[in-house]
Amino acid sequence: MTTPLRFGLIGTGRIGQVHAASIAADADAVLARVADPFIDGARAVAETYGAIATADAEELFTAGDLDAVLIASPTPTHVDLIARAIDAGIAALCEKPIDLDIARVDALRPRVAASGVPVALGFNRRFDPAFAEVRARVDAGEIGALEQLSIISRDPSAPPAAYVAISGGIFRDMTIHDFDMARFFLPDIVEVSATGTTTFDPGAREHGDFDTAVITLRSASGAIVSITNSRHSAVGYDQRIEAFGELGSLSVANMPTSLVSVSGAAAVEARPPYQSFFLERYADAYAAELHEFIKLARGEASTSPTFEDGRAALVLADAAQRSATERVIVPVDLS
Amino acid sequence: MTTPLRFGLIGTGRIGQVHAASIAADADAVLARVADPFIDGARAVAETYGAIATADAEELFTAGDLDAVLIASPTPTHVDLIARAIDAGIAALCEKPIDLDIARVDALRPRVAASGVPVALGFNRRFDPAFAEVRARVDAGEIGALEQLSIISRDPSAPPAAYVAISGGIFRDMTIHDFDMARFFLPDIVEVSATGTTTFDPGAREHGDFDTAVITLRSASGAIVSITNSRHSAVGYDQRIEAFGELGSLSVANMPTSLVSVSGAAAVEARPPYQSFFLERYADAYAAELHEFIKLARGEASTSPTFEDGRAALVLADAAQRSATERVIVPVDLS
Amino acid sequence: MTTPLRFGLIGTGRIGQVHAASIAADADAVLARVADPFIDGARAVAETYGAIATADAEELFTAGDLDAVLIASPTPTHVDLIARAIDAGIAALCEKPIDLDIARVDALRPRVAASGVPVALGFNRRFDPAFAEVRARVDAGEIGALEQLSIISRDPSAPPAAYVAISGGIFRDMTIHDFDMARFFLPDIVEVSATGTTTFDPGAREHGDFDTAVITLRSASGAIVSITNSRHSAVGYDQRIEAFGELGSLSVANMPTSLVSVSGAAAVEARPPYQSFFLERYADAYAAELHEFIKLARGEASTSPTFEDGRAALVLADAAQRSATERVIVPVDLS
Amino acid sequence: MTTPLRFGLIGTGRIGQVHAASIAADADAVLARVADPFIDGARAVAETYGAIATADAEELFTAGDLDAVLIASPTPTHVDLIARAIDAGIAALCEKPIDLDIARVDALRPRVAASGVPVALGFNRRFDPAFAEVRARVDAGEIGALEQLSIISRDPSAPPAAYVAISGGIFRDMTIHDFDMARFFLPDIVEVSATGTTTFDPGAREHGDFDTAVITLRSASGAIVSITNSRHSAVGYDQRIEAFGELGSLSVANMPTSLVSVSGAAAVEARPPYQSFFLERYADAYAAELHEFIKLARGEASTSPTFEDGRAALVLADAAQRSATERVIVPVDLS
Repeated sequence: MTTPLRFGLIGTGRIGQVHAASIAADADAVLARVADPFIDGARAVAETYGAIATADAEELFTAGDLDAVLIASPTPTHVDLIARAIDAGIAALCEKPIDLDIARVDALRPRVAASGVPVALGFNRRFDPAFAEVRARVDAGEIGALEQLSIISRDPSAPPAAYVAISGGIFRDMTIHDFDMARFFLPDIVEVSATGTTTFDPGAREHGDFDTAVITLRSASGAIVSITNSRHSAVGYDQRIEAFGELGSLSVANMPTSLVSVSGAAAVEARPPYQSFFLERYADAYAAELHEFIKLARGEASTSPTFEDGRAALVLADAAQRSATERVIVPVDLS
Repeated sequence: MTTPLRFGLIGTGRIGQVHAASIAADADAVLARVADPFIDGARAVAETYGAIATADAEELFTAGDLDAVLIASPTPTHVDLIARAIDAGIAALCEKPIDLDIARVDALRPRVAASGVPVALGFNRRFDPAFAEVRARVDAGEIGALEQLSIISRDPSAPPAAYVAISGGIFRDMTIHDFDMARFFLPDIVEVSATGTTTFDPGAREHGDFDTAVITLRSASGAIVSITNSRHSAVGYDQRIEAFGELGSLSVANMPTSLVSVSGAAAVEARPPYQSFFLERYADAYAAELHEFIKLARGEASTSPTFEDGRAALVLADAAQRSATERVIVPVDLS
Repeated sequence: MTTPLRFGLIGTGRIGQVHAASIAADADAVLARVADPFIDGARAVAETYGAIATADAEELFTAGDLDAVLIASPTPTHVDLIARAIDAGIAALCEKPIDLDIARVDALRPRVAASGVPVALGFNRRFDPAFAEVRARVDAGEIGALEQLSIISRDPSAPPAAYVAISGGIFRDMTIHDFDMARFFLPDIVEVSATGTTTFDPGAREHGDFDTAVITLRSASGAIVSITNSRHSAVGYDQRIEAFGELGSLSVANMPTSLVSVSGAAAVEARPPYQSFFLERYADAYAAELHEFIKLARGEASTSPTFEDGRAALVLADAAQRSATERVIVPVDLS
Repeated sequence: MTTPLRFGLIGTGRIGQVHAASIAADADAVLARVADPFIDGARAVAETYGAIATADAEELFTAGDLDAVLIASPTPTHVDLIARAIDAGIAALCEKPIDLDIARVDALRPRVAASGVPVALGFNRRFDPAFAEVRARVDAGEIGALEQLSIISRDPSAPPAAYVAISGGIFRDMTIHDFDMARFFLPDIVEVSATGTTTFDPGAREHGDFDTAVITLRSASGAIVSITNSRHSAVGYDQRIEAFGELGSLSVANMPTSLVSVSGAAAVEARPPYQSFFLERYADAYAAELHEFIKLARGEASTSPTFEDGRAALVLADAAQRSATERVIVPVDLS
């Protein structure tokens, strides 16, 4: 039996708490230390899982008793914390995005590459059982050559205006997951075309952002990806994929909240609403993501998305932002 | 090219009009004569299709210019009209049931058998493309041995009390179609058990009939048929079948009225109501039924349900009536 | 915060292990003692959850440190163990059935009623979120008066012949869950009609049991329940319910194993197989069942199925057995 | 009762035959004359419906006994024939596209506008019951403001290379229907972005065409349309629409070929393939299209798509062609 990996968690907001629970639930991991400048948050999580709390993330790197850190703090801190993990020789799983500024990412890039320290990005959707199943079946040739990938991704409701202001815009904040999902199937994206409009969200309007977007990606193989985004969805979190190939298609439906349907005089076979948001929809994915990262941290074969995957998604987001604002089609080079 | 079969139609009520349209639409048939004591009804149909109208069905048998009669007059007239067709040597397609009294059916039985004149019964559902497809796939072995057959059959709303009074009861009037459908898959039924209750229809209560029923049939092979009936259905005409075998199952869904579904905050993927009643649901089946009868009348190979099938359904209905009223399980011998 | 309820578990077979995990996962419960004559099994479970193991269930009643016992031992031991729990004043949650012999159940009945000790039966399906939702929506009047309840319940594959031999027959062993589900919606069943056949299972044939059955129940209200059973199902565990009322219907679909569907030249929108068996299908239900029993044990309001529910299901099973073998319709009195 | 409209049909290929059947089946229309340089084709259709055949379409305009012409001849003849119909004062229903050259369309445009002669374009999909229902429900406000419209349109298999050569390219030949469908919901398209690739069809490769395409349209309102095209589809003709608004969505599913689904060990609820191609899928739409045109020809209120609609679709197709080949986003002005 292997010794469980000792984790430090940086950031105890909503997503940090998800990761804390995943670490605690994984037999191969233990949550040893928790850091958050909002010390009450750190303490609450630490107490729940029997960990040590601190306000200062630096303590995690100097304590000498951690094997890995999970970076779930605000985006502007990611680059420095990854750098610090590399220096300390501690494996890091960092929430997306790496940063909103590609220049800062590129500055860090050679250090990550040279260090040999495992760094993974938190693209949890790759670990969703349904999306992973589709990828595996596409890889197995079930639908022949992949020709079109349609991703529908709509959040249940627009975020607060204050969040929109610092989000980096819909492409870097929300579509970034879809860019990574596109690359999960078709890594070699060569071109981005994006159309964004602002039709309902005052916050998006106030901050020059879009609330509605459609993005087209072209891959080197000729396969085309279509991403449909909205910042709201009356039916609940809308997360669908259709992979279309020469022999047929594989589709991922939304996750219903129950098995019950109702039929009446006005409509029949009406099904229940979908899972409300990502914590419910991707609960299994977060657990699997963590487990795969543990393998990476241990030097085992792992499919964890890498720093390069994180960078590539940001390059695509930047290209989409430019396409949508300057009304041009943008070639990209992800190498 | 074959000469079209010349038809006489007896009875121009709702179902008679359906058959008139089917005859007119079939390239191998022509509607030559129409009889109904309600002469205005006969004339209206005759005029539409260029036929000759009469109030007296006897004229059809003596005219000498008909190849076949379609008997769509009230049930009490069926036995005499079939007998008359046999005497005249004219093929007959008779609406179900043959009669409400098995004694009268049995009295006619040897004459039908001895005559050689083609007599078919109007069990239209055998010709529904979906039910026929399931039968063909079961026969082809797709689900292995057939072990259970579940038939759900619910009318949209209870008939008028006056109709209930003369209907012969739910088993002879409504379930008779389901008895024939059971025998379409499993001809050798050996036992009938029926439970009927009266829960909502004043007409059924008034006339000692049931509005809700569940019937179980056992076949010689050990396969069990379950029939679920109701005289009303808020969602529209409910006509489903599930054939269950050792390798899987084949199911027939209800026929939707459109391809549109709607999703909103309260429910998702809600589909439109079902076809309202049999004229819409079984439009294709009536046409196919007629076409198959034409083959029978011409002496070609045909799968038209026979007089014996009509008798067997009535035997099962009688057994169900006895089971439901005397609370016994009733063995039957359909040979 | 309430002190967790201290549990003793009797029986550490497959279902005992499920309950052990549920107890361990419930914040209001702790697994303190585990008994099984197969002491290795008891020890394995005890070690996993930090409990004390014994080969002798009697120790649990004399230890003096338990609040409740969970009886998951073989059926013939249930009656004595319930009696023992009553004597010890310890709440008991007993797996179904109480016993295969109604005489033994009736002998125990007055003691249970007089004791005041909480005794619940393990009819887990009442706690399935989907079935519970349908019951709640029926109770809320969403489909008007309940007129028909259709239960389809098929196991994935026939049990070993040795199990069939001691099972008490399909009605007492398998349908007993469906009898309770029927009573979950319609407690006042007044009549049972059952048809069983043996079409595929050599074990059933060897021991005079059925592998295929259809059971009809009539309730005092006139509502009719139809239960369709098979000991095998190529598509996986088949557990469906349709509640039909005057305003429409509520249906519970099978639980799919993934969200992925596939479309190709031969068939489209093909969905993945269903959950393989009850441990997967009813995982949530077992946890909810336990939690509700904890409320009962604490004297709080609880919907746990009672000893009377357990007896009623057995009375229905006995009636079905008699109906299926003697070919009679059997009135029952559950009062 | 109104006198039926006397039609002349120009072109008796596959689509011409569909229109001939629609004219014959409509009680308000009669097929009087049929023209095709391939005189045997003209004669065959004429004989079937009791019309007069000619090789020379000009005869239809001079005969003096026609109220309307249906132009189903090859695309290069459309402009001249519309012009001829205007001169003759005969209403015209012309198959799409008007022409492959927008200059020729624009040259004809003022004459159509000035003439007062009814000219309609054969955008049959507007008359599909499902698409029309969605439009009506969107108009009625059922999903609030329309924000995104997703159109999936895939043909069953690529056309012959010889057809590709003269087709005008995928956008003018195939997507043109989708451009009109987009405008059926959102007439004011202001921008086109298209990505096309050639992944499987040798004919497309040979003639510099695309076989796979994704097109994004922006409307003046900010609503975004996404069109997904492929020249092949293993599952059959793939024709879906999803209208997404602030309150939910309305979706049109593909039309199945039967009501039967199959469940087995490998997959469950597998449904039958879709209708093979447009003649089957849009049979109802062609009949409705004709009937609406008859109203237009009679000077009644009509929703028939106009010459302007035909021109707008071509403008969008030209913009898509430019976008896809020059890799630019193309503003359009449809006024």
